[in-house]
Amino acid sequence: MRFQAPESLAEQIARHLGHRIVSGRLAPGERVQEMKVAGELDVSRGSVREALLILERRHLVEIFPRRGAVVSQLSPALVNSLYDIYIELLCMLGRKLMERWSSVDLVVIMGQIQQLQTLASASEKTGDEATERVVEAGFEVMRHAYRLVDNPFLEETLENFKPAISRTYYLALKKGPGEFMKTERFFRQVTEAVDQGDADGLVAVIRYFGEHQRQQVLKTLKQAQPDLT
Amino acid sequence: MRFQAPESLAEQIARHLGHRIVSGRLAPGERVQEMKVAGELDVSRGSVREALLILERRHLVEIFPRRGAVVSQLSPALVNSLYDIYIELLCMLGRKLMERWSSVDLVVIMGQIQQLQTLASASEKTGDEATERVVEAGFEVMRHAYRLVDNPFLEETLENFKPAISRTYYLALKKGPGEFMKTERFFRQVTEAVDQGDADGLVAVIRYFGEHQRQQVLKTLKQAQPDLT
Repeated sequence: MRFQAPESLAEQIARHLGHRIVSGRLAPGERVQEMKVAGELDVSRGSVREALLILERRHLVEIFPRRGAVVSQLSPALVNSLYDIYIELLCMLGRKLMERWSSVDLVVIMGQIQQLQTLASASEKTGDEATERVVEAGFEVMRHAYRLVDNPFLEETLENFKPAISRTYYLALKKGPGEFMKTERFFRQVTEAVDQGDADGLVAVIRYFGEHQRQQVLKTLKQAQPDLT
Repeated sequence: MRFQAPESLAEQIARHLGHRIVSGRLAPGERVQEMKVAGELDVSRGSVREALLILERRHLVEIFPRRGAVVSQLSPALVNSLYDIYIELLCMLGRKLMERWSSVDLVVIMGQIQQLQTLASASEKTGDEATERVVEAGFEVMRHAYRLVDNPFLEETLENFKPAISRTYYLALKKGPGEFMKTERFFRQVTEAVDQGDADGLVAVIRYFGEHQRQQVLKTLKQAQPDLT
């Protein structure tokens, strides 16, 4: 059992604003005004400023001198940059996992993945809540991998990319009805590679699924804004 | 010519404290007290809190609930974690550079590297200031590479690791008198690989030098704290 310290006020504000950005209620390019947010939530401007720094670290806002914080863009170029580095770091996580642990050590993580597969198969017919559960279960598998790989810098960097990735991926999951099946197959392939101690195979599977996700996001983006290049 | 907005107060404080950490005047594990710093620098506690969030992002302090900010540790395990991810991201930078640009496009960056080589050869005999100049010139080459690769997430992540890497590398450069020659050779090999359009070769050279640097840092750490494992 792990005890956790209560969230700081800045973290609570960051979570609130972050949820509005990830869900699309705050649009790309929209300004997030310190004073307005402070008034709406009845908190100090200092706490809002801290929250915006946290959101900047999570790649959801950009902070410009004088102009202040702006919800970060979702152009194809930015999605490509994001997936380029995210896929690379995920592959690193997979490789480190295989370097340090045998399939016997990975029994717990394999069990988690199987639960996730079941969840994904069942989610095909259901709605938004199921989507959220599958995405969350996927991140839970990653968190378990962090504990085994034990690289705080890799963990922190991946965690900071998580909200931006979720934001793009929700977009794609809403459109593509076959995505859950693909997610299920991905995790089946992951268990197979881990089970066989096949590090190269694991990296290939991660890269393939990452690239697929990237393409889905780019497609969705193009449908939403056909004039983008 | 680029105009730059003046640094925010928080950024100025972060730079001041960061310099004290990188140079070793603030020791690993030491607490950085918000109120004390605010008093010493005659600034608000809010600005100091913002500065500490910036330093956390740069991996120089860790912030714990209740305990506050503490200068991050420099154990062998942490140095290994840091170099693991840093080397991976540098290799990615090199690979992307070769994917997008031919050696003809890279003339400017090659010129910069040659200046750096000259600097490194001359620095062998001189002191701390020369060290700083060589390290800075190395980062300048990276900044030029950022502009060509144009991935803001990769740039941001690498830039955030820069202070922590500098901190470990200064440690190593102070000890090893042959390090400048190795740096010079590294940049010669980089130019050769780029010139031949040899992406795999470039990645290999980056990885080799990164690993060498890691070993130097680990050795220095062991000499300073022989009881560490």
